[in-house]
Amino acid sequence: MPHISLPEGLPGISSGFAFRPETAKPMRELAHILLHGPNALSPAERELIATYVSSQNDCFFCQTSHGAAAAAHLGKQADTVNQVKHNFLQADISPKLKALLVIAGQVQKGGKHVSPESVQNAKQLGATDIEIHDTVLIAAAFCMYNRYVDGLATWQPSDPAMYASMGEHLATHGYLTSSQNSK
Amino acid sequence: MPHISLPEGLPGISSGFAFRPETAKPMRELAHILLHGPNALSPAERELIATYVSSQNDCFFCQTSHGAAAAAHLGKQADTVNQVKHNFLQADISPKLKALLVIAGQVQKGGKHVSPESVQNAKQLGATDIEIHDTVLIAAAFCMYNRYVDGLATWQPSDPAMYASMGEHLATHGYLTSSQNSK
Repeated sequence: MPHISLPEGLPGISSGFAFRPETAKPMRELAHILLHGPNALSPAERELIATYVSSQNDCFFCQTSHGAAAAAHLGKQADTVNQVKHNFLQADISPKLKALLVIAGQVQKGGKHVSPESVQNAKQLGATDIEIHDTVLIAAAFCMYNRYVDGLATWQPSDPAMYASMGEHLATHGYLTSSQNSK
Repeated sequence: MPHISLPEGLPGISSGFAFRPETAKPMRELAHILLHGPNALSPAERELIATYVSSQNDCFFCQTSHGAAAAAHLGKQADTVNQVKHNFLQADISPKLKALLVIAGQVQKGGKHVSPESVQNAKQLGATDIEIHDTVLIAAAFCMYNRYVDGLATWQPSDPAMYASMGEHLATHGYLTSSQNSK
């Protein structure tokens, strides 16, 4: 049961967004720019970073919804999503993305955990400054979204079909509007 | 030295904001609504929550700048700021704010650490649902801001006068514009 009286029937973060639309607006905009806006990193790569950090933070709603969005971008390659969550160094992804996931994992532990060596390694594998910046910020932002979702004890349905549908919506339309509103 | 080529001479988060104005906009707006917008919690109380979480995350720039903003709101009662950072249960603040700081500290550890008992205690001491919501979100948001500032290894000056000036600016004008731009 949620810690406060959130609107019923809205899953995960959407209940917090409906409860407090003023803060929802910039939180949606930030997610949209980071995950759906123009970027040298593909939407799939950015969703995989978000999924990995959410899994490290043990947030079921975020890792499942963003994992579904990543799978939608990847053509439903759910195997890659699971590989990234459980052992990304062995996943079927580029060496550059592996190096960025190392940085994302360090950010998840705390900002000071990011090492010059991990940044240098990512640069040697072709990562640009803005790609490193966005990796740090995606990881930092999901340390916020994950804590918001679980810190309010939001309702998080278990139905895989619901997350698949949400992932399709997010992959297609981004984050400025709710998938609940478009139904 | 910063991990990427951030604009020189801008302290802490302002260098990240100048590097990537697209993401700076919603990050500034979120901070402004949470810390400076209309709220049942006073600006001083909200800045103290931000300062406490930033100190738990060991982010020098954020705990010093928001501590200075809290002190500016409190009439330069820096003692209260230090008490909150080091032992808030003994600080000269209301029982309700102490209960909210307990929740903020749980969010800092991770969303699932927030206990029904700590929320119930805050409610019994007069905290409303929106005050609990905003406490959770301020704490979650500073887990983002702190990781962004330290994850990029931003330049963080040590001069107390710089932070006092920044705190005065933030307390007066909020977060939509940079104190750097107004000088």
